[in-house]
Amino acid sequence: TDRIGQRLSGSPGAAAAVAWSAEEFRRDGLARVRTEKVMVPHWIRGEEFALLLSPSPVPLSVTALGMSAPTPSGGIAGDVVEVSSFDELHALGEKARGKIVLYYKPMVRHPDGDSYGAAAGLRYRGASEAAKQGAVAMLIRSLGTLSARLPHTGVQAYEDGVEQIPAAALAAEDADLLHRLLASGERVRVRLSLGCRTLPDAESANVIAELRGSSRPEEVVVIGGHLDSWDLGTGAIDDGAGVAVSMEAMRLLKKLGLRPRRTIRAVLFMNEENGNRGGLAYAEAHKEELASHVAAIESDSGAGRPLGFDVSAGAGGLERVTALARSLVSLGATRVLGGGEGVDIGPMRLAGVPLLSLRQDMTYYFDWHHTAADTLDKVDPRELSDNVAAMAFMAYALADEETPLPRIPEAERVVPKR
Amino acid sequence: TDRIGQRLSGSPGAAAAVAWSAEEFRRDGLARVRTEKVMVPHWIRGEEFALLLSPSPVPLSVTALGMSAPTPSGGIAGDVVEVSSFDELHALGEKARGKIVLYYKPMVRHPDGDSYGAAAGLRYRGASEAAKQGAVAMLIRSLGTLSARLPHTGVQAYEDGVEQIPAAALAAEDADLLHRLLASGERVRVRLSLGCRTLPDAESANVIAELRGSSRPEEVVVIGGHLDSWDLGTGAIDDGAGVAVSMEAMRLLKKLGLRPRRTIRAVLFMNEENGNRGGLAYAEAHKEELASHVAAIESDSGAGRPLGFDVSAGAGGLERVTALARSLVSLGATRVLGGGEGVDIGPMRLAGVPLLSLRQDMTYYFDWHHTAADTLDKVDPRELSDNVAAMAFMAYALADEETPLPRIPEAERVVPKR
Repeated sequence: TDRIGQRLSGSPGAAAAVAWSAEEFRRDGLARVRTEKVMVPHWIRGEEFALLLSPSPVPLSVTALGMSAPTPSGGIAGDVVEVSSFDELHALGEKARGKIVLYYKPMVRHPDGDSYGAAAGLRYRGASEAAKQGAVAMLIRSLGTLSARLPHTGVQAYEDGVEQIPAAALAAEDADLLHRLLASGERVRVRLSLGCRTLPDAESANVIAELRGSSRPEEVVVIGGHLDSWDLGTGAIDDGAGVAVSMEAMRLLKKLGLRPRRTIRAVLFMNEENGNRGGLAYAEAHKEELASHVAAIESDSGAGRPLGFDVSAGAGGLERVTALARSLVSLGATRVLGGGEGVDIGPMRLAGVPLLSLRQDMTYYFDWHHTAADTLDKVDPRELSDNVAAMAFMAYALADEETPLPRIPEAERVVPKR
Repeated sequence: TDRIGQRLSGSPGAAAAVAWSAEEFRRDGLARVRTEKVMVPHWIRGEEFALLLSPSPVPLSVTALGMSAPTPSGGIAGDVVEVSSFDELHALGEKARGKIVLYYKPMVRHPDGDSYGAAAGLRYRGASEAAKQGAVAMLIRSLGTLSARLPHTGVQAYEDGVEQIPAAALAAEDADLLHRLLASGERVRVRLSLGCRTLPDAESANVIAELRGSSRPEEVVVIGGHLDSWDLGTGAIDDGAGVAVSMEAMRLLKKLGLRPRRTIRAVLFMNEENGNRGGLAYAEAHKEELASHVAAIESDSGAGRPLGFDVSAGAGGLERVTALARSLVSLGATRVLGGGEGVDIGPMRLAGVPLLSLRQDMTYYFDWHHTAADTLDKVDPRELSDNVAAMAFMAYALADEETPLPRIPEAERVVPKR
C-alpha cells in the first residue's frame, strides 16, 4: 500500500499489484503461481466538487460513487429533496422531478458492521431509483461511522433503460448540514460537478498460488481477498489486509512444512469493488473444477481482530466449522454463524461450494472504509497476525479433514441481490 | 457556522460574522453594542496539491500554513529531509540546502493538549529556520491527535530578512508515509504546489457588548473568544464555541437580571488565527482604560466540558480564583492553575490585567483543530452549556467582588514568545 498506492481496476496500481503479488508468491516458494486474465471496468474519477448555493455559498466535501456518469461540464444545479428510504422516495411522486435526491441514512457503530447493508442498498441502486422519479442527480450521506469530513465512495450500478444520472457521496458533516437546513425549512440548492469517466474495459488478472495437497491434490480449498481497491486511499483495510492474510497464511504453511491432504489455493481477486469481474471470471474459468472445491474462505472485512467465521454450507456444516473453530479459542475467534459469503467467492455458491467469511471486528472499519484515510496506519500488526493464524488454521483444517463440508443445498445456490 | 461558514480574516464570512454577532447582541438587549475597526491580514488559500515523486507517484494530502508564500506556478520539487526539532535541523548543516524540510513531531492525546505547544513552535517558525539552512520549502506533519487524512492548517510567520519559502502541513498519514520511506533508506522526492496569496490588509472589526455595572461601571471584566476561523472547516470548536460561550453568558446574565457591581464586557475578537490584530487593536484602543480592567477571561480551547480556569494574576490571585471556582463543583470545573493566557487577551498582560483562560477538556480537540472537520457536529450541546455556566459564573463573581484580583506584577508583564 505504501509503494503501489491505490489499485482501482484498470489503474497502474492494480497492474503493479498483480505483478508484485505473483512475484511474492514465487519468492515464497509456492506452487503453480500464475495470473488468470480478467477484463475489468475502467472507471476514472476526474475532478469533482460540490457547492451549496442556497441558503449560503459553502463548499461541500464530495466524491463520485464508482461507475457514476459525469455531470455536464460546469456541473449540474438543483434543489435538494431528502429521503431515508426508497419508500420515502416513491412517496415523493412528482416532487423529485428536476431535483437532486439526498439519501440520508446514518450508520450505527457495531462490531458486525450490520447497518452497512441497508445503507449500501441505497447507494447501489439509488441513482436509478431517483432517475425514475425524474431526479437530475443523487447524493448520499457517506456510509460511515465517523464524521471526519471524509466522503466515502463505493460502487453504484445503473439499471438498464433508466437515465444515468450522476451519483456522489457527501461527507457526513456536509450531509448533516443539508439535513439541518432542510429541517429548518430552508430551500437547499446545490451544484454538483463530477468529471469521472468510464473508459473501455481493461485487461487485468486474478493472481493464484497453491500449496499442493498430499493425497487429494485435485480437491481444493480456496482462500483469498481482493487486490483492487478504491482510489481515494491506499486500500490498506479494504482489502490490503485480506490479501496480506491470504498471502501470509500460504507462506507460513509452506515455511512450516504443513501439507494437508487437499490443495490450498490462494486467489487474489481483481475488481471486487466495481464489478466483481475477478470473482465471476474465476468461477467461469474453473467451472469444471468447482465440484471438487471443498470450501472457499474470503477475508474482506478489514484487519480488526478475528472473531470467527460465517458459514454457508449444507446441513451440519455450521456444527463442523464450530467444532474446528474451538481450536482458535486463544485468539477469541470461536464465533461461527451462518451467512458465509463474499463478493469474490459468491459466484461459487452456484456450484454449491461451501463459503466461509473470516469475520473481523468491524467496530472501526466503517470509519475509514472507502475513504482517503484507508491507509496502512489503520492496520494493527498484531490483529493482522491473529487473522493470519485464524485463516491458516481453518484453511488447513478444511483441506485435511477426512470428509469435506456438506455442500450448499440446491435451493440456496442463488446469488443474493444487492 | 452553518449559515456563515468559514470566517478567515478578510473573508465575506468574517464580515458576516461581525454583522451577525452585533445584531444578536442588540437582540439580546445588551448595552453599548458596537464594532471597533481592526485592519486585518488578508491571506487567501488558492489551489494546492502535493505529490510524492519518488519512490512512486502518490498524491499527498496537504494544506498551506496560514500566511505562507505561494510556490512558483507548477510547484516546487525537492528531496525531503526529516527533522523533529530545530536542533536536528541545525545539525543538518549544508544537507538541508535545496531540500524540502519535513518537521515530524507527532502529538500525544491529552486532556490538556500539552504537546501542541512544542509542535506549534516548529510550525510557527519552521519555514524561516529551514530557509536559513537553504531549504526550498517546509512541510510539517499536521499538528493533531487523529489520523483521518486531514491536513491541519495553522499560522506561521516569516522572520524579517529571511527568504520566504512555502510552508504547508501534510496529513498525518502522508507524513507517516514519508517517514516510513525515509526510515527504509529511500530517496523521497516531493512536488509541492501552493496557490495562496496575501492581499492588502482588509478592514474588519471586533464586536463588543456590555452588561453595565451597578456601582462601578467604569471597572470592567472582559470575556471573549474569537470571531475569525480558519478556512478549511467552519470553525465550530475554534472558536465558534468561545463566541457562543461569551454571547450566551451575556444573554443569560441579562435575562436573569443579574447585574454585578462592575461592567462585564464581551469582546468578540477578530483575527486571532493569523495575526492577532483584534487583540492588539483592543488593547491599543482601550489603553487608557486598561488600568480599570479588573480581569479578562478567554474561551478558546473548544467546547469540551469545562475543567476550570488557568490564571495569571498577582500574589494571592490563584487562591482567590480557586475559592470562587469551588462553586462550580457540580460542573467539575474546579481546577485552577497558573498560566492564564490567551492570544486575544494576551496584549492586556502588558497593563497588568489579570488573565484567565476557561479550561476545556481538550482530549479530542486536536483531532479536528484547524481542519475541514471543525464543524458543528463536533460540539456537544450539553458540554457547551456547561462552559456557558462556568464563564457566566466567573465573570459575574469577578465583576461583583469587593476587592479586584491582584494585578500581574510588573516583572511578568511581557508577551510570551511563540
